[in-house]
Amino acid sequence: MERADGRKNNQLRPVIITRNVNKHAEGSVLIEVGDTKVICTATVEERLPGWRKAEGKGGWLTAEYGMLPRSTGQRMMRDAVRGKQNGRSLEIQRLIGRALRSVTDLQALGEYTITLDCDVIQADGGTRTASITGAFVALADALYYLVLNGKLDKMPLQDFVAATSVGRVNGELVLDLCYTEDSVAEVDMNIVMTGGGHFVEIQGTGEEASFSRSETNQLLDLADTGIRQLIEYQKSVLGTVAGCIGN
Amino acid sequence: MERADGRKNNQLRPVIITRNVNKHAEGSVLIEVGDTKVICTATVEERLPGWRKAEGKGGWLTAEYGMLPRSTGQRMMRDAVRGKQNGRSLEIQRLIGRALRSVTDLQALGEYTITLDCDVIQADGGTRTASITGAFVALADALYYLVLNGKLDKMPLQDFVAATSVGRVNGELVLDLCYTEDSVAEVDMNIVMTGGGHFVEIQGTGEEASFSRSETNQLLDLADTGIRQLIEYQKSVLGTVAGCIGN
Amino acid sequence: MERADGRKNNQLRPVIITRNVNKHAEGSVLIEVGDTKVICTATVEERLPGWRKAEGKGGWLTAEYGMLPRSTGQRMMRDAVRGKQNGRSLEIQRLIGRALRSVTDLQALGEYTITLDCDVIQADGGTRTASITGAFVALADALYYLVLNGKLDKMPLQDFVAATSVGRVNGELVLDLCYTEDSVAEVDMNIVMTGGGHFVEIQGTGEEASFSRSETNQLLDLADTGIRQLIEYQKSVLGTVAGCIGN
Amino acid sequence: MERADGRKNNQLRPVIITRNVNKHAEGSVLIEVGDTKVICTATVEERLPGWRKAEGKGGWLTAEYGMLPRSTGQRMMRDAVRGKQNGRSLEIQRLIGRALRSVTDLQALGEYTITLDCDVIQADGGTRTASITGAFVALADALYYLVLNGKLDKMPLQDFVAATSVGRVNGELVLDLCYTEDSVAEVDMNIVMTGGGHFVEIQGTGEEASFSRSETNQLLDLADTGIRQLIEYQKSVLGTVAGCIGN
Amino acid sequence: MERADGRKNNQLRPVIITRNVNKHAEGSVLIEVGDTKVICTATVEERLPGWRKAEGKGGWLTAEYGMLPRSTGQRMMRDAVRGKQNGRSLEIQRLIGRALRSVTDLQALGEYTITLDCDVIQADGGTRTASITGAFVALADALYYLVLNGKLDKMPLQDFVAATSVGRVNGELVLDLCYTEDSVAEVDMNIVMTGGGHFVEIQGTGEEASFSRSETNQLLDLADTGIRQLIEYQKSVLGTVAGCIGN
Amino acid sequence: MERADGRKNNQLRPVIITRNVNKHAEGSVLIEVGDTKVICTATVEERLPGWRKAEGKGGWLTAEYGMLPRSTGQRMMRDAVRGKQNGRSLEIQRLIGRALRSVTDLQALGEYTITLDCDVIQADGGTRTASITGAFVALADALYYLVLNGKLDKMPLQDFVAATSVGRVNGELVLDLCYTEDSVAEVDMNIVMTGGGHFVEIQGTGEEASFSRSETNQLLDLADTGIRQLIEYQKSVLGTVAGCIGN
Repeated sequence: MERADGRKNNQLRPVIITRNVNKHAEGSVLIEVGDTKVICTATVEERLPGWRKAEGKGGWLTAEYGMLPRSTGQRMMRDAVRGKQNGRSLEIQRLIGRALRSVTDLQALGEYTITLDCDVIQADGGTRTASITGAFVALADALYYLVLNGKLDKMPLQDFVAATSVGRVNGELVLDLCYTEDSVAEVDMNIVMTGGGHFVEIQGTGEEASFSRSETNQLLDLADTGIRQLIEYQKSVLGTVAGCIGN
Repeated sequence: MERADGRKNNQLRPVIITRNVNKHAEGSVLIEVGDTKVICTATVEERLPGWRKAEGKGGWLTAEYGMLPRSTGQRMMRDAVRGKQNGRSLEIQRLIGRALRSVTDLQALGEYTITLDCDVIQADGGTRTASITGAFVALADALYYLVLNGKLDKMPLQDFVAATSVGRVNGELVLDLCYTEDSVAEVDMNIVMTGGGHFVEIQGTGEEASFSRSETNQLLDLADTGIRQLIEYQKSVLGTVAGCIGN
Repeated sequence: MERADGRKNNQLRPVIITRNVNKHAEGSVLIEVGDTKVICTATVEERLPGWRKAEGKGGWLTAEYGMLPRSTGQRMMRDAVRGKQNGRSLEIQRLIGRALRSVTDLQALGEYTITLDCDVIQADGGTRTASITGAFVALADALYYLVLNGKLDKMPLQDFVAATSVGRVNGELVLDLCYTEDSVAEVDMNIVMTGGGHFVEIQGTGEEASFSRSETNQLLDLADTGIRQLIEYQKSVLGTVAGCIGN
Repeated sequence: MERADGRKNNQLRPVIITRNVNKHAEGSVLIEVGDTKVICTATVEERLPGWRKAEGKGGWLTAEYGMLPRSTGQRMMRDAVRGKQNGRSLEIQRLIGRALRSVTDLQALGEYTITLDCDVIQADGGTRTASITGAFVALADALYYLVLNGKLDKMPLQDFVAATSVGRVNGELVLDLCYTEDSVAEVDMNIVMTGGGHFVEIQGTGEEASFSRSETNQLLDLADTGIRQLIEYQKSVLGTVAGCIGN
Repeated sequence: MERADGRKNNQLRPVIITRNVNKHAEGSVLIEVGDTKVICTATVEERLPGWRKAEGKGGWLTAEYGMLPRSTGQRMMRDAVRGKQNGRSLEIQRLIGRALRSVTDLQALGEYTITLDCDVIQADGGTRTASITGAFVALADALYYLVLNGKLDKMPLQDFVAATSVGRVNGELVLDLCYTEDSVAEVDMNIVMTGGGHFVEIQGTGEEASFSRSETNQLLDLADTGIRQLIEYQKSVLGTVAGCIGN
Repeated sequence: MERADGRKNNQLRPVIITRNVNKHAEGSVLIEVGDTKVICTATVEERLPGWRKAEGKGGWLTAEYGMLPRSTGQRMMRDAVRGKQNGRSLEIQRLIGRALRSVTDLQALGEYTITLDCDVIQADGGTRTASITGAFVALADALYYLVLNGKLDKMPLQDFVAATSVGRVNGELVLDLCYTEDSVAEVDMNIVMTGGGHFVEIQGTGEEASFSRSETNQLLDLADTGIRQLIEYQKSVLGTVAGCIGN
């Protein structure tokens, strides 16, 4: 059975990452994964939250996630109007923060807090994994800015990290679900993996369904293939900055 | 005295309006006025708020305004995190809504509600006036969509509308203030004007200062010049759709 | 055509300002403009908001605005019950604050914060302009209190300031709209002007309508006439305190 | 020992109730008890809350209580700014509502909801009891309005109700505490009583102190004396309307 | 007429207090009064709220009250979902705090803040009085913990305190109302009394009814009887700790 | 290396599930997993949320999760006081809901909504997985109640479901982490599995660390072992009700 957009089951959607899309932010990218578009900005502030300072374990990195009201097929109520972030947003931004912290040497980051804002301009499935893949590039640029300006001696990034989704749709195991696939998927799994091929997150969910051990293994294989390609793309996009990562 | 970016006192910043930047929305544009960038989407819904239905005066049009956290030089706290829209946002979105309603034949709009979302991607002064100028184009596209789909007989738009700012900066009267000018302006005036040269809004404010009747007249002249150019540009951007407006 | 209450087009409603209506506040008035009644209190506190202190530009003056639930024809939900101030209140209190700051020498105010609370007891149109006109008198009393108590050497007030509304109602240009006029006005303009005849704010709005340059000029003339009378009345009400203003 | 304002221990402060202070509300009074001033308005609406309708037990009566920010010696933060009513306000408005419902024949009130808004303009102790005493008069006026307009056959008021405070201050038992007494009282008791001499509420509280059975009895005696005078005054103020109550 | 559960009018429900039900809290009990079950924990923190520190009157003690959503017959919306504590909860937790402070020597408590959390696991009437009776035991344990650990020289508890409800149900005066009685009671009175037989709180309310002086006296008698039994039980439950109270 | 409480790496903590701990709820249990204690209640309501009704896919099942303020070592601020549920709570209750829906035949549930409330009385790690394991039993009891009362023909439960955590602690892979283990774990994985051995959720997270494919497989093996034991225990606790599940 053919996929909605004619892709093979193990094929990613086209990915484009455009750097420096915001003149104010220390790092910024627009990432497009098929029709999903997310602006990721990295803000550097020379301050630490009180609790983090007290821990004495170095800098901090956190993320926030939002969607423009008409990023989706049906217009959503603005979070600011509802008076709070919805549960899904909070869950996603916690995931993005954990993913990027896993490859960052916070001790080496010193007194800096980095805030990654991931704002979905247009959604077509996979916004959280696109956010992670794009935010990594914005983060690298922001840290490179600190190095260039003599604030840090070297890049406190230990590895690359990227993410994609895999799932079971109509009984088929597929890579990088678009919205029409996601909305009917029996199983949905978001995977975050490092350049070294280690997992940072595996979030597999049966939607009123369940999945076997064997399917789990095949889905992890698919994700592994996809994320390796995404990280290759991050490297090519980052150019010389890529060379400073993991050393 | 020369302006920050070398413009003449009566010169607008470069304006670019790109249509159809969002695949979901019935109308959508990215408007760039110098370094100020706003995404404006128009959402059509076949429903009316209860109070409007009760009035029996036709359709409704409303606007919402937001800024991405890092659209500004210093990262702002996300409204959704603060738990409410700030006063400035509410004030601006009320202005945008009034401006666009002034040229819309709501009676002819029937049972439809149009929501204009103006989200600032990058701010460099004049975000509210850029929002109005851009949202008009998104609105025209959304209404044209209703006509094309046989939902409306004709475009319920009676005229064009656009906006710009004028002000007194270091004693000079200037058109279309960028952020560095805006932040030191003694007088700041936002003007909304129709294609017919009539005002919809005049919002002039002395910032710990005041202004004379004569200055008021010169500022209105400057604004008149600028808005006529903006409306010419809206016409060229809208192409054939422009021909259906005001007829 | 005669106005709802028999006034001429260029005639203000009767205005009464009663000073010292609150035994706790450093300045307090009840202002009645026709059937609109607003209690304005000025609170002096010897402290500054952190951001203002950091600026090092002297004292601060801010305003808050509220309406009693049954100040209007239909009872409104209490802001405290809704959990937030509505957009209109926020917009009005920002206006009041700007208006009063425009005639106050904040540098000379030193370490003091003045808070003007304008609470509408009964509304019949023009509550924001009545608030400004009344709050100025409460402010003058509070500053005089600081002078009398040796906290300030002289009154840090550079001029008088008052406000009124003008508008187009059924095609006629009129001064000081009451509620029945305001609710059907095609054009509504709030003007804040100093004793020296300079504008601090011009906020003109077409309600699903627009207005010409010529109408703008006539409306500004009407407002000028009205505000000069209001400032004369402020002077007579303030008596000896008036003599210390602008010197 | 003499009281702060020279009163005898069993003496009320001067009470003035002014009717019809608000042109919009169906009933409205300004009650002054010494320097405590409260505006009480009664709003009639021909609707019932859903839960009350479901009960089928007739109309409904509810109360809301607020304080202007500078009604007190120190300016308080506006509830609307804090984003919620504080616990004390909620507790007081529940008390006012219960007090007035105790003398109202809700069954006879039919499909109407009465909302009593008690807004403290100036506070000097006893704002909750003044609110009850004043709100009763506003309620009577609002119900009389319903009778006059043929909406109700007779006044659905079964008795008068009024309230005062008593307490132990420096070991002395006193009636009607002003703020300076209230703030140092060891025991504070608010009593609500009907014209028939029955209690509706007894709320006695030891503030880091306790009180004996004998003191309880003496305090109830003091309150009985005071409330009988308050009800006499309500009768004189209500004039002919008073004759329709309890029949 | 027999009571719902066969008790005599002056009979308490069975009371069971189980100490040390929480391994984290410095004091904790489960109190069961008939089918009403409340977990009370006492938390000791070596810090003071800023305002209390400024007063220089010693330590602080505060209470919070909550109900699990299905503690009641009909599931209630979770306060955290509604976004605020309801008025009833706030009123009750203020009562609990006052009751316990009345027997605590705050001066002797030094730099400590004690927080009593009373969470209703199952409700069947009398949750606020059960909370007070149980919280006292948790408080005693927490203070004893401070003494045992050398943080305090002696127990800063001057007396015992407990609470119960009394009321008029179908014309009969009864002690310790269960929910079916409470929901039809004409009069409902919550009494807090010390071991010395002095009142800390008397909160009597007529629910769309009123009550006489004579009934008041009989109700206070009933409460006195009940609370003396509750305090005897507290003593037996506290064992050796009881011996350190009031000395 | 020995575990904190002397368990083997593949050993669960002692589990006790007590049914019918709440007299109001249609299903209720107290689940204790070591020192973690959670009250789970299942509430049956004969109504559907509007959006679910519109879908026409049968009944609905949702979950809410909360922690008592002193369920943890340090007292937490009450969610109701903070004014919102925190992100972690929202994330957990979404997980609980998905887990239970995966084994429920919602179509067969008809017009009923089931709400599972999981309130943590005492926390010592694994509160979310204990909630799922306990809530399943409460759910079974509530559904059995519907069958017994003739509201449903048969139990709409297709299988059992339970959950546990696994993780890497000091380099060792262990089952069912207690708090002291959880707080230092390099990898933390929560697994939800059905009686048929299929996964419903795999949520594996590296805390500033990552994990290999081989570790993933070993962790899934550990979880499989633990959850099979938990489901055996659920069966024994449910007795005859267990026989109606999955048929």
